[in-house]
Amino acid sequence: MYFSVAASLLHPVRVVGVIGDDYPTHELERLSTRGIDWSGVERATGESFRWKGKYSYDLQSRETLETRLGVFADFKPKLPDGAHAARIVFLGNIDPVLQLGVLDQVKSPLFVACDTMNYWIQSKRDDLLKLLARVDMLMVNDSEARELSGDWNIHRAGRWILERGPKQVVIKQGEYGALLIEKGRTFHIPAYPLEEVFDPTGAGDAFAGGFMGYLARSNAVDTQHMRRAMVYGSTMGSYSVSGFGVRGFEGVTTEDVEQRVRQFVDLTNVPIAEPAP
Amino acid sequence: MYFSVAASLLHPVRVVGVIGDDYPTHELERLSTRGIDWSGVERATGESFRWKGKYSYDLQSRETLETRLGVFADFKPKLPDGAHAARIVFLGNIDPVLQLGVLDQVKSPLFVACDTMNYWIQSKRDDLLKLLARVDMLMVNDSEARELSGDWNIHRAGRWILERGPKQVVIKQGEYGALLIEKGRTFHIPAYPLEEVFDPTGAGDAFAGGFMGYLARSNAVDTQHMRRAMVYGSTMGSYSVSGFGVRGFEGVTTEDVEQRVRQFVDLTNVPIAEPAP
Repeated sequence: MYFSVAASLLHPVRVVGVIGDDYPTHELERLSTRGIDWSGVERATGESFRWKGKYSYDLQSRETLETRLGVFADFKPKLPDGAHAARIVFLGNIDPVLQLGVLDQVKSPLFVACDTMNYWIQSKRDDLLKLLARVDMLMVNDSEARELSGDWNIHRAGRWILERGPKQVVIKQGEYGALLIEKGRTFHIPAYPLEEVFDPTGAGDAFAGGFMGYLARSNAVDTQHMRRAMVYGSTMGSYSVSGFGVRGFEGVTTEDVEQRVRQFVDLTNVPIAEPAP
Repeated sequence: MYFSVAASLLHPVRVVGVIGDDYPTHELERLSTRGIDWSGVERATGESFRWKGKYSYDLQSRETLETRLGVFADFKPKLPDGAHAARIVFLGNIDPVLQLGVLDQVKSPLFVACDTMNYWIQSKRDDLLKLLARVDMLMVNDSEARELSGDWNIHRAGRWILERGPKQVVIKQGEYGALLIEKGRTFHIPAYPLEEVFDPTGAGDAFAGGFMGYLARSNAVDTQHMRRAMVYGSTMGSYSVSGFGVRGFEGVTTEDVEQRVRQFVDLTNVPIAEPAP
């Protein structure tokens, strides 16, 4: 949901997924005004996927208390008409076997990124490695990168992942921003400075939505576009944490997004030349 | 020591301080070949200042186990001839009363920065606040900024400190880099990506040495120079963690430093214009 709301500010989004009969569909209906196509979301009997966790006092780390797959357990994703031709594909965090199943249905994608989580790293490691061999990018948070690679050093962890297939890895670091790691080259984008952070839930998904939405709008995946995509990701993450649930996006327009994106230049750019004394 | 070694790669350094009779002076002598003037370092009877701590598994956080002032307890710093005219002054982490005493001896500094630590924040808070009212910059790590301000949000903590006097605050964040916070404007510099980190001790001091050494060399303290100083700080921090003690600096030349500084442009700079599709 965070992904779709963020991405839809930049480009039309088609969602494939499953919800249980307990899902608050009025939320979906309200959001579909934003140009999100929900026709690929099945409604199944049973409870929706649930993740329950506890955040640390500084909202920087979190502990998983419970992961309940619900209707995801028996989900067989099937792309609706038109989605087979998708060029920019994000395989959200579900069973890697299902992610592979979705990927098989896409005809000739330009760029495929995937997400995962500790649950699959532990229970479906082999399938996850098969998936990594077939995607262009893995986008995970730092604890997932560490758990997957078995290495606490984030740059070595990134290289370990690159050696499994992806050409790029994005490692999200919460309030510290995110890294884009390619072979022999690294780019860092900080988080937008915020004095009020209400809810870090979904910030990573909003980051992914901004990142992929920008690539879809640009229809280009070279390094320069990828770096600008990092800024759109960080920008969407900053809206996400500014309110509970997706409320941080209420009233946010594409022009607001572009304005915040421009602020990242002043936040990050090192003066290249020696300034005059 | 880390400060002096880092700064001396950019500009001559004069050190004022005190060591106990247990201090390994051969280390000092070896380093004085680098253009560090140690004539302001007194040798007193007793044990040198000691800090003992424990780092977390990822070297990101640390716990103070013991702080022993030793000869610092009775230290009355006195500037040697010539040092009274210093233009760029760094008041290292000692009792804020002594930091004020040093500051009183400097005639007309262009720029004064100070450091502090949890020990003084807890035991000499009032003196520390007096000092803040008289310096241009406080340079601390994130846990110190949080403890001093009583606020876990780092941007609010930075603003709290600015309201106490300094025109700038640098908040060091270990492997996540550092923030330069001014009124209404923030700049972030990441840490240099390193696959091998041996010893985080002294990285913050090396950062400070690179930052101040660059300002001294430039003899300018405007925002553009300050932002480049952040790059020199982060560069020196990266050498510091690459070996135990000051060994990370062995064989490092000023040209090595300049080359690493240039690499920060690729690591951080957001493409300003929309790239061609």
